[in-house]
Amino acid sequence: MATEIIREESNSLNRFETLTRMNPVEEFNAYRSKMNERIFDADNKVIKRIFNLDTNTYKEGALNVKTKELMGLSCSMVLRCDDCVKYHLEACMKAGVRKEEVFEAFSVASLIGGTIVIPHLRRAVEYWEELEKLNLDA
Amino acid sequence: MATEIIREESNSLNRFETLTRMNPVEEFNAYRSKMNERIFDADNKVIKRIFNLDTNTYKEGALNVKTKELMGLSCSMVLRCDDCVKYHLEACMKAGVRKEEVFEAFSVASLIGGTIVIPHLRRAVEYWEELEKLNLDA
Amino acid sequence: MATEIIREESNSLNRFETLTRMNPVEEFNAYRSKMNERIFDADNKVIKRIFNLDTNTYKEGALNVKTKELMGLSCSMVLRCDDCVKYHLEACMKAGVRKEEVFEAFSVASLIGGTIVIPHLRRAVEYWEELEKLNLDA
Amino acid sequence: MATEIIREESNSLNRFETLTRMNPVEEFNAYRSKMNERIFDADNKVIKRIFNLDTNTYKEGALNVKTKELMGLSCSMVLRCDDCVKYHLEACMKAGVRKEEVFEAFSVASLIGGTIVIPHLRRAVEYWEELEKLNLDA
Amino acid sequence: MATEIIREESNSLNRFETLTRMNPVEEFNAYRSKMNERIFDADNKVIKRIFNLDTNTYKEGALNVKTKELMGLSCSMVLRCDDCVKYHLEACMKAGVRKEEVFEAFSVASLIGGTIVIPHLRRAVEYWEELEKLNLDA
Amino acid sequence: MATEIIREESNSLNRFETLTRMNPVEEFNAYRSKMNERIFDADNKVIKRIFNLDTNTYKEGALNVKTKELMGLSCSMVLRCDDCVKYHLEACMKAGVRKEEVFEAFSVASLIGGTIVIPHLRRAVEYWEELEKLNLDA
Repeated sequence: MATEIIREESNSLNRFETLTRMNPVEEFNAYRSKMNERIFDADNKVIKRIFNLDTNTYKEGALNVKTKELMGLSCSMVLRCDDCVKYHLEACMKAGVRKEEVFEAFSVASLIGGTIVIPHLRRAVEYWEELEKLNLDA
Repeated sequence: MATEIIREESNSLNRFETLTRMNPVEEFNAYRSKMNERIFDADNKVIKRIFNLDTNTYKEGALNVKTKELMGLSCSMVLRCDDCVKYHLEACMKAGVRKEEVFEAFSVASLIGGTIVIPHLRRAVEYWEELEKLNLDA
Repeated sequence: MATEIIREESNSLNRFETLTRMNPVEEFNAYRSKMNERIFDADNKVIKRIFNLDTNTYKEGALNVKTKELMGLSCSMVLRCDDCVKYHLEACMKAGVRKEEVFEAFSVASLIGGTIVIPHLRRAVEYWEELEKLNLDA
Repeated sequence: MATEIIREESNSLNRFETLTRMNPVEEFNAYRSKMNERIFDADNKVIKRIFNLDTNTYKEGALNVKTKELMGLSCSMVLRCDDCVKYHLEACMKAGVRKEEVFEAFSVASLIGGTIVIPHLRRAVEYWEELEKLNLDA
Repeated sequence: MATEIIREESNSLNRFETLTRMNPVEEFNAYRSKMNERIFDADNKVIKRIFNLDTNTYKEGALNVKTKELMGLSCSMVLRCDDCVKYHLEACMKAGVRKEEVFEAFSVASLIGGTIVIPHLRRAVEYWEELEKLNLDA
Repeated sequence: MATEIIREESNSLNRFETLTRMNPVEEFNAYRSKMNERIFDADNKVIKRIFNLDTNTYKEGALNVKTKELMGLSCSMVLRCDDCVKYHLEACMKAGVRKEEVFEAFSVASLIGGTIVIPHLRRAVEYWEELEKLNLDA
């Protein structure tokens, strides 16, 4: 009897552990992908085209990808959108933005957007550190 | 001894499980009701009248409830208030808004408010699906 | 000599008068068209596609034009964009929205967006009245 | 003939001069009163009650009028609503707020809201000076 | 074997329990301090000076601390920044702001910012109650 | 007598003409300088330090001036601050940003911020053209 309870609990715990064992970057991207799929399934043309535009806007053009992603990052911060910040932080890292550069983008956004940006700055710094860890493993 | 530990753990787990077993719609509404009560207890006249107005504004008038709730929903999305979106999604479903209609409201809000609305769109779609599940059970 | 001065002044005045003789609706639309053209001349693909989407989003779909324009109007008010409000007010009038209905959209937006919406409400009411005058002439 | 033209121009000019001769405070309040009347004429209950609440909220309560108006002023600044700022500046002056105090409210709002508040700060300082002039005449 | 599983589970649970046993005020302040340190470590001069200014702005001046914190609180609410609200709620309590006063600040913010402030009001009231509990223990 | 009236009118007109003869860039900068001076005269330390920070933040660092000004421009657009946009447009031109680059910054801001950014885009394009004219004269 005791072992049955233990087994059941163990399963519950494992589900819980698995859930929390994903690192914050994977967790964010997994949720993002899952919901994007659901949104595409609904087949609303306007929304699909907005998603499409989103992909194209940050491509190399008169300005390079790095500059565009830094603009995307700072805009996301002043608009205080944590998920948008996370997305652009990963894109910035992939575009080769270094820590000092990211912090200068943070400083511009914090000055323009004021101290209400600071709680988002804290979470951004935490996420940047998670991205750095993953980068080191790679 | 072992069983004692098991029992204790079992209790801890049960508390945790109970907490997460409520569906997201019930959880949202339960917190909402609980805190509304606390707010009313404080007996601030201005706040009470704002709550009152909130109830009256969405009633049938020159415009029907469905149109008003769709306006409430799209305004909540462009202002990026997840809780407000949830509230109006439930009210929309009760007013007979269908999935394609809700997605058109989402498309208007995403276009007007831009891509920073998208993270809120993801959570809105997730919540709408939760509402659909409850509706099927009913 | 005196008549020369008069003539010159008269010209200055005429230029001034002509400028102000356009009604506010014509003035708004003239500026809008002129600048849209300049924007299109720059030939930025992303911006062109956003303008295109803007036209398509408000077309009849699962929701009718009237409902979509009322959503566009209320979103514009809570986001406190006077020009967007003006644009949607004209589209609402063309879609057959009546005064009581427009005021209910105003009421929803004022409640959701709070008293900072009121200065925009004043300008919206003024513009609606200008639209009504033009409608009477037609 | 010449005098006829002169007379006509003189009338045009007078109309123009009269328009601009009102000081900015009178102009703001005149437009405000005129449009509030139009809004009340439309007889939308929700809007009327919001206006009513607006009057009651700033009355003496647990907090005094001065503190409430300073909160109204700083909120209006961070939300970047010039008309709201003007309204609360006049109310602040009437409640006995001194220049150094108003500037401390400005400083709190500029820090919280960031440098995008600065253009509104410029217009706020300009309006405060207009209010001071009127006060000196009184 | 069974006891080994139990022990392991027990550890997992304890980590979970410890995590949730901190009260919400401690949890908020712990995260805040930890991330502020990381931000300071990055040594960006602009960000450091913004943090510095933040400390100085709310000090006694022409206006007293209580008034400044009430402005900080109401600005945070209309800008819908939960973390900022929490920070100023604690500072308000330390400055001697009473419950009725806090609710009047809430009422001003809810009126100015509209019903989208209400979800933030719920969380603010919940946090204020947590602060009250801690105060009673002291 | 007639000539006296003419002379008087002529003066009024001249004052009006002079006022409008300044180009929009000069007009903007003149108002900005005048009001900055008034703000500095008030001698509020926090505000002075915010102005100071504003100057330092956009200086060459890990990121170059051009990138920082492009971030400043796009942040100003998504926050829909016309005056801030004007300021950063001039700084962008001085930093050597070309027309296609400015339009890519506009495109990023319009996508992120949505169609409510468009009225600000119109005014930004108009101001950029004014800056181009001045540049050609130089």
